[in-house]
Amino acid sequence: MKVTLHIHCPDRPGIIRAVTQFFHLRGGNILYLDQHVDQEAGVFFMRLECDFAQNDPGLSMLKESIAIELAEQYHMEWDLYQEGLRPRMAIFVSKYNHCLYDLLSRFRSGELEVDIPFIISNHEDLRHIADQFDIPYHCIPVNKVNKHEAETRQLELLQSHKVDFVVLARYMQIVSPLLIGAYPNRIINIHHSFLPAFAGAKPYHAAFERGVKIIGATSHYVTEDLDAGPIIEQDVTTVSHVHTVRDFVSKGRDLEKIVLATAVKLHIAHKTMVYNNKTVIFY
Amino acid sequence: MKVTLHIHCPDRPGIIRAVTQFFHLRGGNILYLDQHVDQEAGVFFMRLECDFAQNDPGLSMLKESIAIELAEQYHMEWDLYQEGLRPRMAIFVSKYNHCLYDLLSRFRSGELEVDIPFIISNHEDLRHIADQFDIPYHCIPVNKVNKHEAETRQLELLQSHKVDFVVLARYMQIVSPLLIGAYPNRIINIHHSFLPAFAGAKPYHAAFERGVKIIGATSHYVTEDLDAGPIIEQDVTTVSHVHTVRDFVSKGRDLEKIVLATAVKLHIAHKTMVYNNKTVIFY
Amino acid sequence: MKVTLHIHCPDRPGIIRAVTQFFHLRGGNILYLDQHVDQEAGVFFMRLECDFAQNDPGLSMLKESIAIELAEQYHMEWDLYQEGLRPRMAIFVSKYNHCLYDLLSRFRSGELEVDIPFIISNHEDLRHIADQFDIPYHCIPVNKVNKHEAETRQLELLQSHKVDFVVLARYMQIVSPLLIGAYPNRIINIHHSFLPAFAGAKPYHAAFERGVKIIGATSHYVTEDLDAGPIIEQDVTTVSHVHTVRDFVSKGRDLEKIVLATAVKLHIAHKTMVYNNKTVIFY
Amino acid sequence: MKVTLHIHCPDRPGIIRAVTQFFHLRGGNILYLDQHVDQEAGVFFMRLECDFAQNDPGLSMLKESIAIELAEQYHMEWDLYQEGLRPRMAIFVSKYNHCLYDLLSRFRSGELEVDIPFIISNHEDLRHIADQFDIPYHCIPVNKVNKHEAETRQLELLQSHKVDFVVLARYMQIVSPLLIGAYPNRIINIHHSFLPAFAGAKPYHAAFERGVKIIGATSHYVTEDLDAGPIIEQDVTTVSHVHTVRDFVSKGRDLEKIVLATAVKLHIAHKTMVYNNKTVIFY
Repeated sequence: MKVTLHIHCPDRPGIIRAVTQFFHLRGGNILYLDQHVDQEAGVFFMRLECDFAQNDPGLSMLKESIAIELAEQYHMEWDLYQEGLRPRMAIFVSKYNHCLYDLLSRFRSGELEVDIPFIISNHEDLRHIADQFDIPYHCIPVNKVNKHEAETRQLELLQSHKVDFVVLARYMQIVSPLLIGAYPNRIINIHHSFLPAFAGAKPYHAAFERGVKIIGATSHYVTEDLDAGPIIEQDVTTVSHVHTVRDFVSKGRDLEKIVLATAVKLHIAHKTMVYNNKTVIFY
Repeated sequence: MKVTLHIHCPDRPGIIRAVTQFFHLRGGNILYLDQHVDQEAGVFFMRLECDFAQNDPGLSMLKESIAIELAEQYHMEWDLYQEGLRPRMAIFVSKYNHCLYDLLSRFRSGELEVDIPFIISNHEDLRHIADQFDIPYHCIPVNKVNKHEAETRQLELLQSHKVDFVVLARYMQIVSPLLIGAYPNRIINIHHSFLPAFAGAKPYHAAFERGVKIIGATSHYVTEDLDAGPIIEQDVTTVSHVHTVRDFVSKGRDLEKIVLATAVKLHIAHKTMVYNNKTVIFY
Repeated sequence: MKVTLHIHCPDRPGIIRAVTQFFHLRGGNILYLDQHVDQEAGVFFMRLECDFAQNDPGLSMLKESIAIELAEQYHMEWDLYQEGLRPRMAIFVSKYNHCLYDLLSRFRSGELEVDIPFIISNHEDLRHIADQFDIPYHCIPVNKVNKHEAETRQLELLQSHKVDFVVLARYMQIVSPLLIGAYPNRIINIHHSFLPAFAGAKPYHAAFERGVKIIGATSHYVTEDLDAGPIIEQDVTTVSHVHTVRDFVSKGRDLEKIVLATAVKLHIAHKTMVYNNKTVIFY
Repeated sequence: MKVTLHIHCPDRPGIIRAVTQFFHLRGGNILYLDQHVDQEAGVFFMRLECDFAQNDPGLSMLKESIAIELAEQYHMEWDLYQEGLRPRMAIFVSKYNHCLYDLLSRFRSGELEVDIPFIISNHEDLRHIADQFDIPYHCIPVNKVNKHEAETRQLELLQSHKVDFVVLARYMQIVSPLLIGAYPNRIINIHHSFLPAFAGAKPYHAAFERGVKIIGATSHYVTEDLDAGPIIEQDVTTVSHVHTVRDFVSKGRDLEKIVLATAVKLHIAHKTMVYNNKTVIFY
């Protein structure tokens, strides 16, 4: 059994030694340890991979021991993940297809080690792509009248299929607090600007209007504040006066694909931690 | 005589032919021609370099001909620059020295083909660098009481030394409308963020607070709206959770130096045109 | 009728005026003109887009006039393309699927304005992707014994389907002089390194071995010298000691996709010219 | 007392625990721990910062304990650095001044926490810069006849001034095995290409000739194989057909400055380890 441990807690001497000692005593071999201290906030972060090749303690037993022997004493917030299990990922889309094509191509290539139980959309437009890649597609139209009902239906689907996290692959709707509450730091969005610049609607138009020389894309966890959640990944590309808004959109598509896929891969590999509306990204 | 011509005017057929014909008839050889059409605004831009090796028409004669034979018919806004003349550049600084060191090093290396009649600062701190590079240094303190007087003194210095353009090399004061009016699109500022994100004070702190994965620097012409003038050049660099605000400042210094110097060189080479609070940057 | 003209010829005064005059006299409106002089080689390059809205001279008539009235006098090499025609693009693949998925997704999204009559591969592995996107797939195994026969078969397919250009989307075979001769500067390859570093086989392994901090991808026209043809586009990404060869491969895939697609789009838009084993890329 | 420990040794279970236990028992607080395993080579690397606020064991005592209690058992290669001591850095230059200006400006700004006992050059050209920044300048001409004598003189200067490491800031001479042997992995060079492309003389000319779309700079430790030592840092910038060799040189200068300064700062902070002609760069 291989496990990955995430910890954050108030910084104080001795934590690293205590944690490594803990795993050593149970016959675990530490494959990877990365630690970070937010000096300003006084918070200690750690990500640790441990292999129990011959001495599998069992996941629940291990969790219990961590709770009792480590977490309490150091006031740790923590998570323990067993490696090798494929998380279940749902994809939400509207009408733009580039991120969907990209995610499904990576999925079919074996690049994303997940299961994809279904795609949800508020439009029928991309059903043919879901069909092409043989993934169930649920069209749930959203409008002012049926909004609550639609979101309830979304949540039911997510829960009945035991979905672990959600990817908004250019889903052009604001996600409800209902879903955000059910999936805290587990809904990944792609926004087509280098946030915090150009939050909200039509960022490429706004960027063109402002005459920037660089455009970007940002992947972040969704919170109730629009486009203001913890940033996972950003990238940019240069533009100039020769580029029209249409060119921005076209160049931006490639950014969005890469930035979103990178964020999804980091999330799957348990390399992201959230604290204080920011992320710690382990490598 | 070599000249560079800048034009912008309403787009319509025949402009390129008319302009090239104009120079051809006067015995000029067009060394470079770049043109751009802002489709949305319907505006045509052109930058043209022409060599009158054997048929020097004289600068003022040429200007007169352009006004009569080209500009009127096509409703052109235009400028004509004689190449080979060294423009006069003033530098404004406060307490940060990295951009000043960088500009003066480039100047002494012959990389910037300008004259630098003086440096103005609101503090004494960097006088030693001016001395080291043998450039006059005027300390003009600015505070609430003497603000108008200080700005008048600045303007006098600029005008009496026939300064052509001003570089704010991390000058931590808001420049007065008096100066902006006297030097429209001829005051170059460096702002330490990828604008429009983090305009105003303490952008590195704000970027750190937001948890961005990319920081940037922006060079722009100064207008009366703070940090909102036409952008000349931007660049970015990646950061992560391991970087403190101090690291942002340190990484940002290198960006600021390069971005500001690039903008200054573009300005010197007459490769920038301003229209509609945006720039056209010819290569 | 809109046309795009490519010219290169010995540099001398008056070319721009002559060309613009030529189109003006035929009632054409020049939409775009970009020109470049290779000072060292003394060669003039031009790309010009012209719209004959009301005075369509006919493509062959126009070509004849260019030949007689411009090309001869200025010793021009030139090409004239009528816009709005979809070129026919063949794709060659082996076993890697990421570039194929990317090209076909872009094609189906309408991002690539081409027709794709077929895909050729030396293996059966990717047939399911061709099927998924509904493109004919020809498997032509290549080995030492049948090499000439296989290449002849490839060429027959290309010619019988009137293919305009070929994209090697990670085709792991050396292309024969037969094909290169039939498609000069019309076979686009993607190589997974920043050429000229790591030409030849296994560039990611070589890059890992050398301990570089940057890896890249290069798209180029295929010539008889392996990985030495005119470079169209390059891009890079950072790596560090934490990355294994497998990580290089994974990061590189994204580079390869973007770099190849960018090169293909430049080629389709007639924005590339080749001279002296180098490219001029108009924007 | 704060110390930084570098370790590399054959990978096996228990190393992290043993090391953290070692420092814990001596009352040290681990401020930072980063570890890396080269899976292919089976080598474990660690960098650890430890603070002995109240229990200063003394540097030599600590070294002795490490040797006996850790290093032997785990077959470690290791180094221990006491923080807060300013290393002594010599600079070698020839005729190019940009890297020298940049390093000295950073030095005077307090950005580089070193002492600079002197600059060595084979030419008189840059003496005025040394004077300007008030650093001793030794001109030691090198030619075929006096080569051995010159190098002996260089080494004498380095040793008599207790120089810790050497920076070749565009020193256009091949450094002798004599110096390399005396300063293994302590001579930092800047090469003006993205190595391994364009090793040797005139890389910008070679890059221009090849028609690359990206140029770069590489900082590396000097070994006896020319331009083949362990790479510390690389960066690149885009170029196009509009850029002449002169433009490459000009754009490259900025790269060289940043890349060299970054490498120097990593070296000063003990964030580089060398193994197998590659570097591990801790953040």
